[in-house]
Parts: sequence; structure tokens; C-alpha cells
Amino acid sequence: MTSQPLGPADYSKTPRYAGPPTFGLLPRIDEVEAERPGEKIDVKVIGIPFDAGVSYRPGARFGPAHIRQSSKLLRPYNQATNVHPFTWQQVADCGDLGVNPFDIEEAITTVEANADAMRADGAKLLTLGGDHTLALPNLRSLHKTHGKIAVLHFDAHLDTWDTYFGAPYTHGTPFRRASEEGLIDMTASMHIGIRGPLYGEKDLEDDEVLGFQIIRSDEYQFSSVQDIVARMRGRLGDAPVYLSVDIDVLDPAAAPGTGTPEAGGMTSRELLNSIRGLQGLNVVGAEIVEVAPAYDHAEVTGLAAAHVGYEVLSLWAAENNGVTAPSGPAGDALGV
Amino acid sequence: MTSQPLGPADYSKTPRYAGPPTFGLLPRIDEVEAERPGEKIDVKVIGIPFDAGVSYRPGARFGPAHIRQSSKLLRPYNQATNVHPFTWQQVADCGDLGVNPFDIEEAITTVEANADAMRADGAKLLTLGGDHTLALPNLRSLHKTHGKIAVLHFDAHLDTWDTYFGAPYTHGTPFRRASEEGLIDMTASMHIGIRGPLYGEKDLEDDEVLGFQIIRSDEYQFSSVQDIVARMRGRLGDAPVYLSVDIDVLDPAAAPGTGTPEAGGMTSRELLNSIRGLQGLNVVGAEIVEVAPAYDHAEVTGLAAAHVGYEVLSLWAAENNGVTAPSGPAGDALGV
Amino acid sequence: MTSQPLGPADYSKTPRYAGPPTFGLLPRIDEVEAERPGEKIDVKVIGIPFDAGVSYRPGARFGPAHIRQSSKLLRPYNQATNVHPFTWQQVADCGDLGVNPFDIEEAITTVEANADAMRADGAKLLTLGGDHTLALPNLRSLHKTHGKIAVLHFDAHLDTWDTYFGAPYTHGTPFRRASEEGLIDMTASMHIGIRGPLYGEKDLEDDEVLGFQIIRSDEYQFSSVQDIVARMRGRLGDAPVYLSVDIDVLDPAAAPGTGTPEAGGMTSRELLNSIRGLQGLNVVGAEIVEVAPAYDHAEVTGLAAAHVGYEVLSLWAAENNGVTAPSGPAGDALGV
Amino acid sequence: MTSQPLGPADYSKTPRYAGPPTFGLLPRIDEVEAERPGEKIDVKVIGIPFDAGVSYRPGARFGPAHIRQSSKLLRPYNQATNVHPFTWQQVADCGDLGVNPFDIEEAITTVEANADAMRADGAKLLTLGGDHTLALPNLRSLHKTHGKIAVLHFDAHLDTWDTYFGAPYTHGTPFRRASEEGLIDMTASMHIGIRGPLYGEKDLEDDEVLGFQIIRSDEYQFSSVQDIVARMRGRLGDAPVYLSVDIDVLDPAAAPGTGTPEAGGMTSRELLNSIRGLQGLNVVGAEIVEVAPAYDHAEVTGLAAAHVGYEVLSLWAAENNGVTAPSGPAGDALGV
Amino acid sequence: MTSQPLGPADYSKTPRYAGPPTFGLLPRIDEVEAERPGEKIDVKVIGIPFDAGVSYRPGARFGPAHIRQSSKLLRPYNQATNVHPFTWQQVADCGDLGVNPFDIEEAITTVEANADAMRADGAKLLTLGGDHTLALPNLRSLHKTHGKIAVLHFDAHLDTWDTYFGAPYTHGTPFRRASEEGLIDMTASMHIGIRGPLYGEKDLEDDEVLGFQIIRSDEYQFSSVQDIVARMRGRLGDAPVYLSVDIDVLDPAAAPGTGTPEAGGMTSRELLNSIRGLQGLNVVGAEIVEVAPAYDHAEVTGLAAAHVGYEVLSLWAAENNGVTAPSGPAGDALGV
Amino acid sequence: MTSQPLGPADYSKTPRYAGPPTFGLLPRIDEVEAERPGEKIDVKVIGIPFDAGVSYRPGARFGPAHIRQSSKLLRPYNQATNVHPFTWQQVADCGDLGVNPFDIEEAITTVEANADAMRADGAKLLTLGGDHTLALPNLRSLHKTHGKIAVLHFDAHLDTWDTYFGAPYTHGTPFRRASEEGLIDMTASMHIGIRGPLYGEKDLEDDEVLGFQIIRSDEYQFSSVQDIVARMRGRLGDAPVYLSVDIDVLDPAAAPGTGTPEAGGMTSRELLNSIRGLQGLNVVGAEIVEVAPAYDHAEVTGLAAAHVGYEVLSLWAAENNGVTAPSGPAGDALGV
Repeated sequence: MTSQPLGPADYSKTPRYAGPPTFGLLPRIDEVEAERPGEKIDVKVIGIPFDAGVSYRPGARFGPAHIRQSSKLLRPYNQATNVHPFTWQQVADCGDLGVNPFDIEEAITTVEANADAMRADGAKLLTLGGDHTLALPNLRSLHKTHGKIAVLHFDAHLDTWDTYFGAPYTHGTPFRRASEEGLIDMTASMHIGIRGPLYGEKDLEDDEVLGFQIIRSDEYQFSSVQDIVARMRGRLGDAPVYLSVDIDVLDPAAAPGTGTPEAGGMTSRELLNSIRGLQGLNVVGAEIVEVAPAYDHAEVTGLAAAHVGYEVLSLWAAENNGVTAPSGPAGDALGV
Repeated sequence: MTSQPLGPADYSKTPRYAGPPTFGLLPRIDEVEAERPGEKIDVKVIGIPFDAGVSYRPGARFGPAHIRQSSKLLRPYNQATNVHPFTWQQVADCGDLGVNPFDIEEAITTVEANADAMRADGAKLLTLGGDHTLALPNLRSLHKTHGKIAVLHFDAHLDTWDTYFGAPYTHGTPFRRASEEGLIDMTASMHIGIRGPLYGEKDLEDDEVLGFQIIRSDEYQFSSVQDIVARMRGRLGDAPVYLSVDIDVLDPAAAPGTGTPEAGGMTSRELLNSIRGLQGLNVVGAEIVEVAPAYDHAEVTGLAAAHVGYEVLSLWAAENNGVTAPSGPAGDALGV
Repeated sequence: MTSQPLGPADYSKTPRYAGPPTFGLLPRIDEVEAERPGEKIDVKVIGIPFDAGVSYRPGARFGPAHIRQSSKLLRPYNQATNVHPFTWQQVADCGDLGVNPFDIEEAITTVEANADAMRADGAKLLTLGGDHTLALPNLRSLHKTHGKIAVLHFDAHLDTWDTYFGAPYTHGTPFRRASEEGLIDMTASMHIGIRGPLYGEKDLEDDEVLGFQIIRSDEYQFSSVQDIVARMRGRLGDAPVYLSVDIDVLDPAAAPGTGTPEAGGMTSRELLNSIRGLQGLNVVGAEIVEVAPAYDHAEVTGLAAAHVGYEVLSLWAAENNGVTAPSGPAGDALGV
Repeated sequence: MTSQPLGPADYSKTPRYAGPPTFGLLPRIDEVEAERPGEKIDVKVIGIPFDAGVSYRPGARFGPAHIRQSSKLLRPYNQATNVHPFTWQQVADCGDLGVNPFDIEEAITTVEANADAMRADGAKLLTLGGDHTLALPNLRSLHKTHGKIAVLHFDAHLDTWDTYFGAPYTHGTPFRRASEEGLIDMTASMHIGIRGPLYGEKDLEDDEVLGFQIIRSDEYQFSSVQDIVARMRGRLGDAPVYLSVDIDVLDPAAAPGTGTPEAGGMTSRELLNSIRGLQGLNVVGAEIVEVAPAYDHAEVTGLAAAHVGYEVLSLWAAENNGVTAPSGPAGDALGV
Repeated sequence: MTSQPLGPADYSKTPRYAGPPTFGLLPRIDEVEAERPGEKIDVKVIGIPFDAGVSYRPGARFGPAHIRQSSKLLRPYNQATNVHPFTWQQVADCGDLGVNPFDIEEAITTVEANADAMRADGAKLLTLGGDHTLALPNLRSLHKTHGKIAVLHFDAHLDTWDTYFGAPYTHGTPFRRASEEGLIDMTASMHIGIRGPLYGEKDLEDDEVLGFQIIRSDEYQFSSVQDIVARMRGRLGDAPVYLSVDIDVLDPAAAPGTGTPEAGGMTSRELLNSIRGLQGLNVVGAEIVEVAPAYDHAEVTGLAAAHVGYEVLSLWAAENNGVTAPSGPAGDALGV
Repeated sequence: MTSQPLGPADYSKTPRYAGPPTFGLLPRIDEVEAERPGEKIDVKVIGIPFDAGVSYRPGARFGPAHIRQSSKLLRPYNQATNVHPFTWQQVADCGDLGVNPFDIEEAITTVEANADAMRADGAKLLTLGGDHTLALPNLRSLHKTHGKIAVLHFDAHLDTWDTYFGAPYTHGTPFRRASEEGLIDMTASMHIGIRGPLYGEKDLEDDEVLGFQIIRSDEYQFSSVQDIVARMRGRLGDAPVYLSVDIDVLDPAAAPGTGTPEAGGMTSRELLNSIRGLQGLNVVGAEIVEVAPAYDHAEVTGLAAAHVGYEVLSLWAAENNGVTAPSGPAGDALGV
């Protein structure tokens, strides 16, 4: 890096409730390119307002704007991990990708092509969804660069169902399609936070065949975050990891604003510390999906999603700065 | 009619907040068929939870359940028109039609086939949407029976746009498609309640070519309901009329729970009296669409939709009972 | 009046969002009695948190606190009628009356006894409900003082139904009971704002026999406030009037926070000007009922109720100051 | 069982947001009786929309419809306990019971008679309330069949208060009345989740005399679910158990939609695992009460209640299938 | 104008719920400057998130973002006036102005300096507030260019109060300060929509002395929009007009999201047609203030504010295109 | 104490939803003074509706009324600690203090003077905020009596920032100012619940220099309440403690109604038990701040705040009654 990254808006001049409607008040990509021409952009944040793939409550098309609005309070120093996500790397908000709301397959194609283009310069992508259908084109793109991807999937649901109403590509199927297409590292993928009723045992059997291990939401109650982090790290190893966070992994109390809520979920504290535990792993991309603002209240869901995004940026800032294991108080507590 | 129609649940035994979740606490179709085997069902109420055709706020898939919930206070005597909508005819609630949420064209086909089947015995159909895409298959079905249909369309929007993102069948296009397909009586169709910004003058020019006249929302302020009813009746004449009510014809204050709200709309009082003014015309089908409950509050939107449904049933009950013009206090005031 | 009435809290010292939780920031009765011992209290405001009589959405038990909270912006000069409701008379907030939530008949007895006691010194009572069951004991009390009472009843509903689930005393029956008990001046009573479905023609026939005339909500659309006020004044004459305002007389858009909402209702502007038109008549008591805060939003319903209360106080202030007809701009416009 | 139980609506034909408004999309009782004439119905789900017994926020009369609406995402396989609640037994939704909203004692009589009738064929009853007053008639009915009942009561409150405003039968008193009437097994009953201020020590002393042990909400923080399940099982033994879940046992964050919320409550994860820990015990009836939808947001409370119902059905399905202890991952973790 | 103005985002590529969070999806000022260097920007839209001047409900600091979010459905052709507000002139969204939330006088200075700078090239300013304190610095700036300004002020309140808690500059005082400073054309200024209680007659007397005439909200009921528009035009003449719209001029039903709501207000239809009636007058600046999103629901208030902004842009587009009187259907109906 | 303290309203006569709008239905100070002239008031509850110091979402000015409304369910016996907070001491609600909303420094002066006056007779003060700016004048007042104060500060944020927009006194700075002024015992102060992004390491370094230790929200997950209570007690020793609870210490799920929410927060159960653990320490004053009702839902935040207030009163009642360590079940579990 040859010049200081362009950071967020100057909080001493612009109150946080004002200013650019970007993630974390960070600069837009055109501002970065104008200010630091020719220099690398480490992380690109992209909103994908798409929810044609949902099976129950729609509305995640308004997710990106909502997460950005809820990210205005994010400040540049992560005290939990002792990391500077906004200044140890160049992050840019790339706005929203317009995708066809009436044609899922065209939308998937658009998203994949866009991911290819945005990642062509080596930037990492943080996707703000939108529904979980987006995972498939994101994995397709990453696979071209990194080969088989270890999916680390936080969700109440497996999302390895087959078709629904004959549709192969929906928010319930991305990881089945990805596994079938050979995109996934079947020795290293896992779901975290699974709970709630299924259709049958076959859901679990198929899921295992497709290459996933499962850590259920209940295990946070019966076990500990430390143990779970250790299990995650053991499974993921040094594989390239795609971190996919469906906000419905949280309990409905913490994330009412989502489409298929299930009781018995995780707290945001459990989720944030789990993500902090990934520091030092090879996370090559990430997404936060299924935020449906019409069902949110007082931005509770948006805030949780924004903080997840913040921890993802922190993982990458640490990597960029040569930190190879969980650090700060979180690192100490997790005992990795 | 050879036996007394089966009416709503007995209010003296079941409190209104309890009881069957049908429109107006009316019987389900299976109950009617069991109780009055072989006798005609005059009106069938069908919910179509479909919103894959929306271009802005989704959620109308939850509309049918919401309208039914908001219809529990409806009682059997219409004091405004002196009509008994629940007992001068047999009405049955036929539940919801399951349609594919991921394939608009399949959904349209399903809706048309269902309308054909449900109307095969001569029953009139009251559709609870769902989004406005549904108008097209409903018109296709009616055209087979009645020939060209005079569309009476209450809406903030023309819904005669062409494609959007390449999609020919969405909630913004049903009346263009219907006109192109020759389903519409181009001498007798009209929009009521139009307002808000358009894309250009061509929207209006096209609309006229497609066979519509327009009464704008503002005309309720500058003119009177009486005048507007007279104009509607003059235009519709004795054509077979399809009454299509998009709840966004109401002002956002009266109908927040919808997908593409526009300021400057009608009051529910203006809407209800306009519909009462249709009594005696040849209304052959009706729909209430675009109720999106996630944006509603205290059922305000649902209540307006339920009352619209009630007035539609009243039109048909009057017809069934030989009433040929607006009656009751509303008829007197409208001076038809 | 021998000393200056004790007015509301000093707005220059206490911001309106602070200060006493009384109606209009007016003094509590104990404050008035301490400050002006032995002097007459012209108007007593009493909250009656009771909703055991409701047939649909409950919650009016929280009505008094909500109306008071929504009354904090009321200021002491009524520009519409050129009246000073807070200083031309002594008004005192008497807090809430505790009544049995599990025994309607005991509650009615309590309310009547309380009304007798509070009115013993000649004070007028403004009741903040609570549900409409309260009208009966209020009328019983007033009848003892004034003989037959002309009921002026703003409501979507007649409230002259007979029993419901065998219960003679509910929020749907007070005016039937009152008429049967001979409390009502059958030559001078009327309902304003009636609309929505009924059980049958008999509802209207009974209502007329019980002594009521009806002005429907629709008449505000087809006629004018001026005409309606003239009709009201013609009917009421110089009879002692009980003004009973059920907030559901307003359209659900303007009053979502109520228990049995009906589409097609009045605007708050229509309601307030109708009440202003009563100035100079012999209004002997008043109530505002059926505010159910759990269904309100942003105090919209509470604000409407608070303004109704303000106009009632203005009627009495005008009377106290010798004003005998509508005054101010409202009086001019109404042309009484 | 001689024929395959009739399961929920076919999810491949009817989207979950559509279809029958029954619990879990399960069949109505008339559908079951038509399809499987003469065969046993194992579990009957009955809604009782009644809230005349509440002392603070009313609205539980809308609870049954709300819980059903929130149950639409339930699927047929319980992965936590490896049980099939919808197909290992015949479940039928019996709709709502109409009860008098104005006469608590008549309502109690109606509920008891209905429970007797519905259970006459040996079916188990799952009641969706409604307020907690319902526990008394349910216990009266069960006592006739099973003798003294061990009450397992999840609640923030004891509900063993005596009279309130002279009323012996309210939502705060059912377990005192039941104990006084000799309906309760005083050696085996207990409250779980108790917290919040009481009137005095005597509340606890009386409660113990009435036959209850207490596990406080705080014990989930200081102890573990495993320990608490062990204590529950130890106390309940092989007594016939009535499982009564007041949704206010959850923290207000997880269950805002209730009438008497208390801070410091349980998470839904704690509650669901506690209920799973009952598998193999002799649960003879169950109820979920005090869901007040007007205070809910995004169905958070309704979802928790629906999942509780799902676990209850799972307990019974396991029993029906001969499972005698907690099973599946939950069983393993609970280590029973 | 030498090149085609840069219009809003291409709706065929970017769904309206996506895309730039600017007013009406219009371009940012940096985009315009890059695309059309050296060419005039006719209208600049500026958000000023400031609410330190409010006396009751705060929250208007979130107003600009909310109005922009609610403006996403605006399309480029105004069918009511037959005007193209987005293409007959160059409009640019200039984002938000950061102002000190803790020092009202510094904030006023900042706003005035910013207005001077932004208007230096002759651009017209449309301010999205923020609270009404902003009117004063805006008037100070305009006065330097245009001399005495005719204030056309839509509001429930006069906003000519003197100090409050000793503070001379608050949202209740801008027009008194402006008049005292000689900024206002005392022969041509007026308030529209006034209603609700005042402190005393002196409020009105002072207001008249300060140079204002008043049209009350009630006059829309007793008179007509046509008459009111005629009176406005008569008063304003050819003076330079500052159009200041406090969203609380609307009824709380139509604008719950504001800080000092008053019952009895205007409909959005009345407001929009009143503004359309100004076409051809010399409007030199405009503001929309007091939108407090925390109290809004489903963007009802935001939508009204966005449509007001749209009509303001339409007035200026018409002027830019040489239209000198109300045009289109609105012009015909208003009969100007 | 020579006469029995005057307790809360008689619950057997006044339903809890009715009655005085005081904290816990406790008596107003004028009632206490009239009833028990000359006797000591042990605790005074004062609301301070002030939020001019907030940097993000405003609205805490409505906090006092909201907390009181949410305190109506509090009963007189604390079962967790076996303490009687309402009868072991005289508590009085002193209403709200009117402070200048436009001048922070004047407001601070008013609050300090008021605290001095209210505490002059030795009463302890429980402040219901209002924003956190209030901590400074409260500490200034306490310092005059007790010398250096150990601040025990529950909050997501440090509140030891320096100036913001040049303002030295805001809700983000009270503890820096207090430390600079020498008011704080730098050997005994601490923050509990800290989390979320900071501006930089210097925030933490400064904070330590200013005299604070930190226990992060995450430590409740990695450690236990028992350990944390032990650490708190060890740090606080026998210093005079000011207990300052910013409600945003709770997770947004449990406290949506606040101004600067941060994901990953505490549960109300953790908070309440932490406060119970303080029993026996020398707590000389307390405040509950940053409740912003416009963002609350169903009083969830208000309930948590009310319960915090209840535990504070319990600490003082225990002290008044000679209890010197945590008692009751909480004391047992905490093992102090």
C-alpha cells in the first residue's frame, strides 16, 4: 500500500446521522478511485437488492439500504480484536447492483458476472443481500479463483433443499446447487446455528452427502463459544473460506427483520464472537443476507447485520496487517 | 334459489374475533356444498397469495389472509344501499389458490385455469390478491364467457406499462397485455383515482390507444362523487364490467399497507360510494389487490379492502334480487 | 368566580413533554382545592380505565393515560372559536376512577355513584374512557339532575343493540338501555357519523323507536358541515345535551387506535368543526371513549381525542363567559 | 393406527403463506373425520379466544389466530428430538371455541364441558389461549379422567393469587383454585421461570402450601438446562402432567406480545430445550396462553408460541411411537 | 442550457428500490459536475439533518435520509401539471450539510454560509430538513440576493413566537426573527393551514404586525382549493417567494412522522394542489421541514414530503421552460 | 422512622393500569409530605426529560414518562433478594424537573442545583433520564457531600470522550469531565458492558488514565455473573458508589428504545443480577438514562429500565434495613 487508505467521513465535521449513506460512512468507490488512482482496493462492499428467491416473507430487496443505514454508528477501531478495519486496508462501498427482479436465472448470471468483474483486481467482496439465492453466483465466481471453497454458513436453515415449485435456484437451495456443481470443499464446509423443524431425516442425510457438518444453535447453550470456535477452525483448516451469514441464524428476538424466522436462535454476542474466532483463517469472501426491513424494529436486525459486516472487515484488516490468529480480548477469551 | 343460502357464522355463539377465518365469517365452500348439495353458489371468494410481479415493496402474498382477518367485523346488512349481501345470494369462501411464486407465467396459467373452473357453474368470482398481475388471467377467463370486458380500474397507476426488466407480465402491465390480446372493451374501460408521476406523456397516449379513459384522484376534490359516478355509468353502459380495485387508489394515510403508494389519494369514503354507484350495472367479476400487510398498521388497509369486498358482494346481491339502480341512502345521495 | 382560575403548568418553566401527566397540563383537583379553597370547580376531567364491555379489540383501559399524554401540546387559546377554555373557567383533572375489571354491573354502579358525587357541587364532567359502556351510568347520573337528556352521539355504530352473549350492559348497548330506562329525550337525540354494515333493518327501526335520528358519515361528503350543524342544532334545541364521542366515528386512517373500526369515516376536521357548531347549546356532560392505544400509532388517535376534549372544554368556557352562539372564525364559517 | 394419519397441507402445491389457517397447516377435524372415519384422533388443537380474566394488557383473545399464523413455517420433522410430530400420530385442528366474553364463570363452564367432550374419545388436547384463566377448567376436566394432576407451569408469575377485585376466577388465580379443589398433585407440581416482584412473602408461602415447587428464571443463568430438566423429571416422576406454558415466561425481548411482561426472563432456546427434556413423561394435556398479538412485533411472540406447540406435539408423537426418554441431539445433550 | 440535463438513474437497469440514495434517484452533484462541466445546475437539493431547535418530539435530524428513501418512486413526468421536473432543468442532489447539533447559533451560521455558497451560481435551493429553525438562515441568504421575501408558509403553527426558554432561535420563531430582521415582504407573506390551540390572541396580533396573513386549515373545508389558490396568488403577486412547507400542515393521519402534530389538518391532495397553484409565480427557494421518521409509519409522511419536493421541482421546471401559469389538468381545474 | 412509610396505591382499589402515573404507583412527594409531615424521605425519584446532549437518535426527553408507565406492574416484594423496597423506606416520586432544552450548560446547572436541594435532607436520588449528560451534574452534587465517588457505570460506551463538535458537555463526555474535575475515585470506578467499535486505542488509554477499569459485555459470555460481581465488589470496596445505568448496556433485542444501540449486549437477566450483587455496598445515588421511547416496542425497554429502578430501590431498602450483603436466592446464587 503506497498511500494511506481513504477512511470514513470525518465524524468531527459530519454528524453520524448525516453524511454519505455508505456502509460505515466509508467512501464510495468513485471517491477512492479519484483520491488514490491506481492503488488497490482491498475490500469492496456491494449491495444486491434481490429477493425473488424467497419462499416466505419477502422484502430482503430493501436489505442493503437498511444495513447501510444501521451501520452509521460503526467506528474505526475494533476493541474486541484490537484491529483497525477501516484503515489497515482500503474499503470502498460500491453501491447496489441492479438485478432483474422477475428472472432468477438472469439475476444469478448478473451477480456472478459482477463478482468476477469486481474481484478481477484481487479485491475481496462483502455482499449485503438480498436473499440467500446470491450465495450460488458468489461461490461460482470464487471457485474460478480459489478452487473448491469451504463454506462456513451461519443460518437457522440448511439451504441444501432441492427444488421448490420446480425452481432449482431459490434461497433454500444455493448450497445443494453449489455442491452439485463441485464448487464446495466437501471436507471443510459446515453450517452453524441450525435449528427448527425440517421436512425429514433425508434433509440431514442429503446435507451430509453434499459435504456439510452441522453445529446446531442449541450447542451454544450446551457447549461454549470457545469449543465451537475450536471445532470450526479444526474443520476449516487452511481452506479458502466463504463466510455466508443468514441473519436468521439469530433468534427472532434479535433479528425480527427476516423472512423465515425460527425460535431458539443465537444471540448477536454469540455470533460476533464466533466470527472473531475465524481471525487468521483464509476467508476469501463473505455475505450477509436475508435482512427484511419491513419486519425489523428500531433497526435491531440492521444493527446486528452491520456489526457482522464490521467483524468481516476486521478479519480482512487483520489478514492485511499480518495478524494470524484471534487477537485482542476476544482472542484471549477464545483461547485459540 | 330453492333453499335459504348458508350465511355467516352465528354471531350469538361465536365472538367475531373467534370463528372461521373466512371472508366476513362466511361459510367455506365445502360447508356450502355439504349443506346445500346441488344448489348454485352465486359468489365464490378466492384468495390468490402471489406477489412475484411487484416492482417495489413486496408482501401482497400475505394479502388474502390479512383481508379476511380484517373482514371479521362485517355484518349482514348494508345500510348504505339497503342490501343483504350475505343472504340474498349464496357466497362461499374457497380459500387460497396455491400458485408458483417463482414462475410468473406458470402462475398466470394456474390462475386462469382456476378461474375457468370456478366460474364453470356460473358463479361470480371475487379475487383477494395478491398483486395486480392477477388481472390478466382473470380477464382472459372472463373474456371466454362474456366477450370484450369493460375494465373499471381503481388505482393510483395506469398499469398499462409495457415490459419492465424484459418481463411482459408484471403488476404494472396487465391492462396493456389485456388490451393487446383483445380482451377489453375499448369503448367502455376506464381508470379511476390516477395520480402521481409518470414516465412521460407517452404513458397517457398509449393508455388512451389501449382503450382507457381516466378520472384522476384530484377530480374527487374539484368535482363530486355524484358527477364521477354519472361519468362512470355513462362510460360503462351495459357492458360486462370487471371491477379491479388496487388498494393503492387510496391515500397512503388510508392504505399504508401497499407496495407502490402515492400521496394525494382518495379517501375510503370516496371509494366506497363510487362502488355503490355501480349498482345495477353488469359487473361480471371483481378483484381487490395489492394489500401488503407488512406495511399496514392496525389493519387500516385491510379494513378498507374488506369494505370494498363487502360493497362488491352487495352489488351482486342487489343484482340477484332484481335491484337495477343504486338504492338506499347512497342511491338517494348519488342521484343516479 | 372570585379568584383567577388555576391554569395549566407554566410552559416557560416546564417543557411540554415534562410536567404533570394531566389533561392539557391542567392542575390536579387537589392542587386546585389547595390553591382556591371553597371556590367552584367548573369542569372535572375524569379518566375511567375500563374495557370489559368491548366486543372486539380490547385495550381502551389504557385510553385515559394515552389521551392525557396526547394532550400535552394543547395551548390555552382556541383560535377557531376565540375562546379561552383554560382560563374562563376552572378545570381540574381528577385522575382515574378505579373500577372493577371483572364485573360490568359493579363497574356501572361505581361510575354512576362517582358521577353523582363529582357533580354534586354543580361541576360538569368530561369523561375520558374507557369503552362506551360508560355512557349508561353517566346518563343515569345526569338524568337525576337534568331530567331527560338529549344524547348527541358521534360514532360509527348505533350502540342501541340489545344483549350480546346474554349481557345487557356492554359497549354496544348503552343507548338502548338508557332509552328503555327513560333517561333520553326521544325528541332530541341523534347519532352522527353512522356507517358500516348492520345486522338488519331492524337495527334501524329499533333505533328510531328508541328515540334517535341519524346523520350518516356519508352525509359529510354529500352535504356540508354547515348543513349538518344546522340540523344538529335544530334537533337538539335547548334540551340538556350529553355529548358522547366514540373515537371510531373517525376514519381508521385518523383513528386506528380503537376497537371496532369501520372504513368510510369522518376526518378529524369534520368532527372538530361539528363540535364547535354546538356552542351556545346546553351541553351538560361529555365523554370521549373507545381509544385503544395498543392499536394507535404516533398518538394519531390520542391527538384526535385530546382535541375533541379541548373543544368540549371550549364549549363550556364559552357558556361560562356568556357566549351564546358559535364564535370566532368557526362560528363565521358555520354561519349559525 | 390402521391408516396413515392425515398430515399437513402439501407444501409442494401450496406455498406456506397460503393454505389453511390451521396450526402447522395441519388438517381441520372435519377433514380428518371425512378422510379417516372411525379412526382415532390422537391430538386435538383447540383455540380459545378469551381474555376477560386479564389484569393488565388485554388482547389474548386474538392469540389463537396469531399462533396459527405464526405456525405456518413448521415442518414435519423435529431434528432436535428425531421425532415426527405430524405423522406418528393424527393431529387435527378443531378451530376456535366460542366462549362468553362478558361472563367469566360461564366461560369456564363452557371450556370445561368442551374439554370433556373433546377428550371423550381419548384424544389429548392442546389449547391455544386465550388467557390463563383457562387452566382451571382444563384441569377440572383432566382430573375427572386422570385424578390428581402434576402441574408443570412455565410462567413469570405464580398464578396462585387469591381474588382480585373480588373475582375468584381470573388469569392470576387458576392454580390456587385448582389446588383448593383438589385437582393438583401437590407432591409433583412446579413453576418454572418465576421472577419479578411479588406482593409479599406470603405469596411464596401460600404457593408452597398449595403444592408447588419453584425454579426461578435466574436458575437458568446460575445453573444449566440439564440440571433443571433433571429436577423437573425428578419432581414429576410418572404422575399425569399438565403442561401449562404462559408465554410471559420468556423475556420481553423474546415475547413482547403478552399482557404482564417481566424483565429478566428466559430465552426461547431455554424454554424449548426444557420442554424437550420432558419426553417420556406422562403429559396428559397442554396449553399455551397469554399471547397478546397487539403487542407483538413481526410475530416474534407468535413464533415462540408456535414452536412450543410443536414441541408439545413432538412429546406426544414420541409417546405414541414408544419413545420413553429424550431422544435425538437434544436427548443426548440433556443427558437424561 | 447547452447539453441535455443529467437525469435520474436508468430505471430499466436499476430497480427503484436499489440505486443511489438521492432525491428522486437524481444524480449527485459530483456526477453532474463531472458529466456537464461548467454548465449551470438549476436546482440543488440539500439535506440539513438538524433538530436541536425542536420543542416537542425530536428526530427531524433523520428527515433528509427518510425523504430521500421515500422519493424513490418519483418518476420524471408530472401528469398533473404537464411538466418534466427532471429534464427541463438540471437538478442535483448535494447530500447533507453537517451542522453542529449542540449549538443552534453556530448551526444557523453554517446553514446561511452554505446557502450563500450553493446559490452563488444562481442555483435554486430545495432544503430537506431538519427542523424549522432552518428557515431563518435560508431567508437571510435569499434576502441578500432578492431583497424582501414573500414567505409562503404551510404549517399548522405560526412559527412567529418569541423566545422559548430564553432561546431566540428555535423551530417556533424563525418568521418572527426574519420579520424583525427586515427579511420579509410584509405585504405579501402568509401562512396556510394554521390550526390548533394558541397561547393567546396576542399570537395572532403579533403575527399580523410581523407581516402575515392567515388561511386556516378549516378554510379548505368551508371554501375550495380554487379560492385559496386565488387568494394566495393575489397576495403573493410577483414578489420573490420563499415556499416553506412544514409537513405538520398535514393532518396527523397523513403525516404522523412529525414533532408537533395537530388534529384537523389538511390532506396531501389539498397540499399538492395548492402548490401546483403557484406555478408561474417567482418562487426563489423552498424547504420541506419537520419530518421525524421515528414517528412515521410505512413512509406515509416521507411520501407526502417527497411529493411536495416533486411539485417544487415542477414549479421550477415550468419556470425554466417558460410556463407562466398553472398548466395541465391541475391548471385547468384550479382555473387560474 | 417513626411512622409507617406511605406505600404505593392500593392495588385492590385501583387497577394497575389506572391510578397515579408515578414510579411503581408510589406516592407523589406532596402526598408524602402531607401524610408524614416532618419525617424523612429516604429516596426521591426524579425525572429529568432532557436529551439535548445526544449524538445520534434523540428522544430520551420522553424517557421519564415512559419508564413510569412501564413501572406500573412493579409489586412491593423483591423475591430475588427478599427485600421490601416500597415499605422498608419512604420513597417519593418528585415528578419531572423542567430544564432548558436549548442550552446544555444551563441545563447542567439546573440539574446540579436541583440535586443539591433534593438531597439536602439526606435523601438518596434516583434519576430517570434523559440522556447521559445528566451524570455530570449528579456527580458534582454528590461530590460535595461524599467526596470522590466510585462510578459504577453500565453502558455499551465509555462516555469518556472529549468534545464533540466543540461541545464539552454531551452524553458522550460526562465521565471525562467528572474525572477532570476530580469528582471520581480513580481507584474504584469501572465500566460494565462495554462493547462495539471505538475511535481508536487512545479511547481506552485515556479511559484508564481517567480512572476506569472495564468489564466488557463479552465477559458475561466467557465468564459468569458470579465472577463479575466479585470483581465489581472488589474494585468498589466501601467507596461511595454512583450507579449509572445507560439502558444501551442491554442488547438491542432487549432495549431497542435507545439512542446509540450496539449489537452484542447484555440480557436484562444479567443486568438485574449484577445490580443485586451490589447489595451491601455504599451506593449513594443512581440514574437510569437513555431510554428513547419512540424506538421502543411494547415497552420492552421501559420494562427493563423500570426493573433496574426497582433493584436500585431494593439496594437502598436493604441498606435501610441493615442488610449488609446480597440476600435471598440471588444472594445465595451469587455466592458473595
